[in-house]
Amino acid sequence: MGEEQPLRTDYAGTLTSERIGDQVRLAGWVDRRRDHGGVVFFDIRDASGLAQVVVDPDQLPAGRDLKMEYTVTVGGEVRPRPEGTINVDMATGEVEVVASDIRILSTAETLPFMINDRVEVDERLRLQYRYLDLRRPRMAANLRARSNAIRAMRETLDELGFLEVETPTLIRSTPEGARDMLVPSRLNKGSFYALPQSPQLFKQLLMVGGVDRYYQIARCYRDEDFRSDRQLEFTQLDIEGAFWGQDGVLETLEQVIVAVVEQARGVTIPRPFKRMTYAESMARYGTDKPDLRFGMEITDLGDIFEDSDFKAFSGAVKGGGAVRGLNVGPLGLSRSGLDGLVAKAKELGAKGLVWMVAEDDGSLRSPVAKFLTESELQRLGARFATTPGDILLIAADETKLVGTLLGQLRVELGRPKGHDELAFLWVVDFPVFEETEGGDLAPAHHPFTSPVSVTEMRDNPKAAVSKAYDLVLNGSELGSGSVRIHDPEIQKQVFEVLGISDEEAESRFGWFIKALRYGTPPHAGFAVGIDRLLAILQGEQSIRDVIPFPKTQTGADPMTESPKPVDDFQLMELGVNLRPEVRAALDGSREVPE
Amino acid sequence: MGEEQPLRTDYAGTLTSERIGDQVRLAGWVDRRRDHGGVVFFDIRDASGLAQVVVDPDQLPAGRDLKMEYTVTVGGEVRPRPEGTINVDMATGEVEVVASDIRILSTAETLPFMINDRVEVDERLRLQYRYLDLRRPRMAANLRARSNAIRAMRETLDELGFLEVETPTLIRSTPEGARDMLVPSRLNKGSFYALPQSPQLFKQLLMVGGVDRYYQIARCYRDEDFRSDRQLEFTQLDIEGAFWGQDGVLETLEQVIVAVVEQARGVTIPRPFKRMTYAESMARYGTDKPDLRFGMEITDLGDIFEDSDFKAFSGAVKGGGAVRGLNVGPLGLSRSGLDGLVAKAKELGAKGLVWMVAEDDGSLRSPVAKFLTESELQRLGARFATTPGDILLIAADETKLVGTLLGQLRVELGRPKGHDELAFLWVVDFPVFEETEGGDLAPAHHPFTSPVSVTEMRDNPKAAVSKAYDLVLNGSELGSGSVRIHDPEIQKQVFEVLGISDEEAESRFGWFIKALRYGTPPHAGFAVGIDRLLAILQGEQSIRDVIPFPKTQTGADPMTESPKPVDDFQLMELGVNLRPEVRAALDGSREVPE
Repeated sequence: MGEEQPLRTDYAGTLTSERIGDQVRLAGWVDRRRDHGGVVFFDIRDASGLAQVVVDPDQLPAGRDLKMEYTVTVGGEVRPRPEGTINVDMATGEVEVVASDIRILSTAETLPFMINDRVEVDERLRLQYRYLDLRRPRMAANLRARSNAIRAMRETLDELGFLEVETPTLIRSTPEGARDMLVPSRLNKGSFYALPQSPQLFKQLLMVGGVDRYYQIARCYRDEDFRSDRQLEFTQLDIEGAFWGQDGVLETLEQVIVAVVEQARGVTIPRPFKRMTYAESMARYGTDKPDLRFGMEITDLGDIFEDSDFKAFSGAVKGGGAVRGLNVGPLGLSRSGLDGLVAKAKELGAKGLVWMVAEDDGSLRSPVAKFLTESELQRLGARFATTPGDILLIAADETKLVGTLLGQLRVELGRPKGHDELAFLWVVDFPVFEETEGGDLAPAHHPFTSPVSVTEMRDNPKAAVSKAYDLVLNGSELGSGSVRIHDPEIQKQVFEVLGISDEEAESRFGWFIKALRYGTPPHAGFAVGIDRLLAILQGEQSIRDVIPFPKTQTGADPMTESPKPVDDFQLMELGVNLRPEVRAALDGSREVPE
Repeated sequence: MGEEQPLRTDYAGTLTSERIGDQVRLAGWVDRRRDHGGVVFFDIRDASGLAQVVVDPDQLPAGRDLKMEYTVTVGGEVRPRPEGTINVDMATGEVEVVASDIRILSTAETLPFMINDRVEVDERLRLQYRYLDLRRPRMAANLRARSNAIRAMRETLDELGFLEVETPTLIRSTPEGARDMLVPSRLNKGSFYALPQSPQLFKQLLMVGGVDRYYQIARCYRDEDFRSDRQLEFTQLDIEGAFWGQDGVLETLEQVIVAVVEQARGVTIPRPFKRMTYAESMARYGTDKPDLRFGMEITDLGDIFEDSDFKAFSGAVKGGGAVRGLNVGPLGLSRSGLDGLVAKAKELGAKGLVWMVAEDDGSLRSPVAKFLTESELQRLGARFATTPGDILLIAADETKLVGTLLGQLRVELGRPKGHDELAFLWVVDFPVFEETEGGDLAPAHHPFTSPVSVTEMRDNPKAAVSKAYDLVLNGSELGSGSVRIHDPEIQKQVFEVLGISDEEAESRFGWFIKALRYGTPPHAGFAVGIDRLLAILQGEQSIRDVIPFPKTQTGADPMTESPKPVDDFQLMELGVNLRPEVRAALDGSREVPE
């Protein structure tokens, strides 16, 4: 039970000229080391920042042994830096510590990459040495920002009287949930738990259970084929409230987001956030997650061309489709650049794309100009309020395809780089169904989402709207929520309209529908993807840069070499075998010398 | 985007006489309903408490349909209760709401049990209907207490500059970790992730990575054969700090615990907590987790009996064992009660147990009194400071067995019921090795625990002490921690002394030892079991009562019927099969009609 000598009295980054003359002890990493005429200078780095240390190796021989990323504890006196050596770019740049004692606490081998933000390092190498990558100021700042953002969320919700409740992560698997991650049970061999894709049903049960306001920073799991920026495990802010509806949810989440942005950016963004219906968003931006940092809206041209002699345009309108366009401004695209856009449109499934360039005299130059009347061209120019050099892109096709195409071109040609500006948006009144590529109707949300009207859902499914809403930031969906169904009879009808048979509903959700039968309050909620929110706030392109220990796109961790095969004994205990073809493949791979 | 009518303007439990005359709207559950001369009274219950509502069904027919646990929204005026009907036991007992509007939001079927704390309900039924169980005031209070306790932990650590960092939960499995829960990888068939037993190695990596102070409320997984009060998944407060040692860890955790107890109990417990070495704890209490709410310490009697003619006593001392005893006070045990203790001692593996009763004249009555000298009996009486009626229990055997036996008898005979008093204790200076039942030495802690001296660990393993410490509350271990090894060479030596071969160390922890080679700071940490802490603070016997959705002792969830068999297609996607004997057993069970 002996008393320990503290390795540090102060954090390096906190030393200012007010401390001149004080004896301090610092502990951290040797960040840089310079020899100057027999005296050694080095920066000591800890989580707070850097301080310069001066050592005379003749008096403190340890000063001679210091190498990059050694950890040390240094005792000494704070003194002003000599004139001409003050570093105004450094928080502690007015002072230095004259070492009277140095102890090397640990040494470091040659590093695989430098600990600074100036060097570009291959991401796989960064992940392999994540513990070194995290020492880099940018990554350290990302970790702090994440901690701070989550704290701001909690503080806001605590203040509003929300309870934090932990829901289980070893849950029942749903038969059709082929993308559940499974956990074999050792005590119940042949049975499996699933890891939750979200706490959805448990948070609804909490509402049934009388928890008035719930939140959780919840780890969720989704076994997706990796797209560019997904992770097997991810974190969401999950909230739910009883006797609550959409207005309450949006109001609360805005308070949360404002607090997070204040914490991250030091600015107070205005409330309420913009709200837009799904239908409006699709018409104006061709997407349900529009980036509102820039205009370049999709403009409908149907009225101009419905009776045009140019059949490519009028035919689309008459066939129930649309003619719409963008004014993408003076992009300075060459003819081949414009042709590239046309090729791209065809890749996306469009029959084509018409481009026009506004000339100095106000006329529109285009390969199709000769098929249009002067009046049509004039109305076009007026509709788009063209100025010389503007480029117009026009598509005529099925409405959905036109929207998708122009929405993608809009983002590609208009989206600002970086995330200095933050454009939050609520998209509300989502449809109950969305059309699949084959033209069938598929539920747009999970089956616990409340439709505005079950009758309309049944009688006019394409037009039916549900009480579902998304939060969008800079063109990314941050999360989604809905008012839930709280009446078991309506839940049954919704299953039916969604094409879920009684048997299927019973086998998948019977236990849950039963819970609805004992006095379930109306309730609503939301989930915000924390990884994506943080990436945007920190100006990172990838969520991997705001996750402490992420996995690669194939779900691997290069640092620990995970996942990996396990002992047969372990499998036996769990009641499972590898399938023969998998074992053969593994055995084959084992013949390759490592 | 229509405006919603709020279902509630006020929480029921907040209505006091200050609100008399106000129009309010409440929403909640019908808690109790009484008909009095044509007027219906009912209590409406929400998360804040209860309020009485008065309805005249002739004016509001819905009042006639109200049944237990229906959810309703009620508009009306707050008025004073008539004289003689004020309920002083109820926070809102001075007022009632005269309903002018009632809407039934949902109905409830007949409940499987009553929503109050007065009814004892079978735990399996409670778990099956957990969403109803959670409505009971005691369980609702436990959920709130848990949320508040965790908030107090976070606030304390945030204030101290700790970063909350999320570590991964899909991690590398260790070959010998037969108790890891495994998750088959779909993208890497034949490979598995493990769910973490704790974030141990990742939090150490965060220290390598420059995170100065870390915490996390971490979900952990342990696939144990269920003992009485364990769960497959549990939650711990996990902390770690760099350039830090035992004193810092204990100091910080005491601040956390004081804040939690203030939150839970409204009292400020004194600091510092008691500290005791492992050796002292074993000698005085026969356990490393002593319950200090009561005395009844183990008293060594070796000096009295080392030369006794009573060979059962002197032989034990001379053979390297011990003679020790307890004064368990005036228990009022009959002769057969005392014989029962002797039988119990034999069950625990002792050769026997001697009892003595202090008579009114100060003499000691005992079956063995006749073998002891008058002087020995007098010294015994003096050593235990007996008063008439006191019962002494004496054991003579191997030292460890004597301690275990007397420690268990002490707890059984002396431990207070309930948890009104809170006795926190640090047990420090744990041994490096503990003796197994077979007499071998086994590591007492994980292999990253720093020994005080590697040399002593090697040369005198039985006496070697490590920098490990436990937090104990009322006889339960709340958590443990240690100073970690930060020098890869010492880590290697420790593996060697612990009997972990180079190959094994490399295959299990090679990636981690590599990380230690790049400038690892000295670091230390701790983990506190939140479930156990909350159970004690809430006076619950089982951690299941402070976990929102716990599992039974066989890892089952009676509510969702989890775990369960899954589709063959799902297994195929994961590259695994059920073992033939497991499949046969399942097929057999499927023949039983459900």
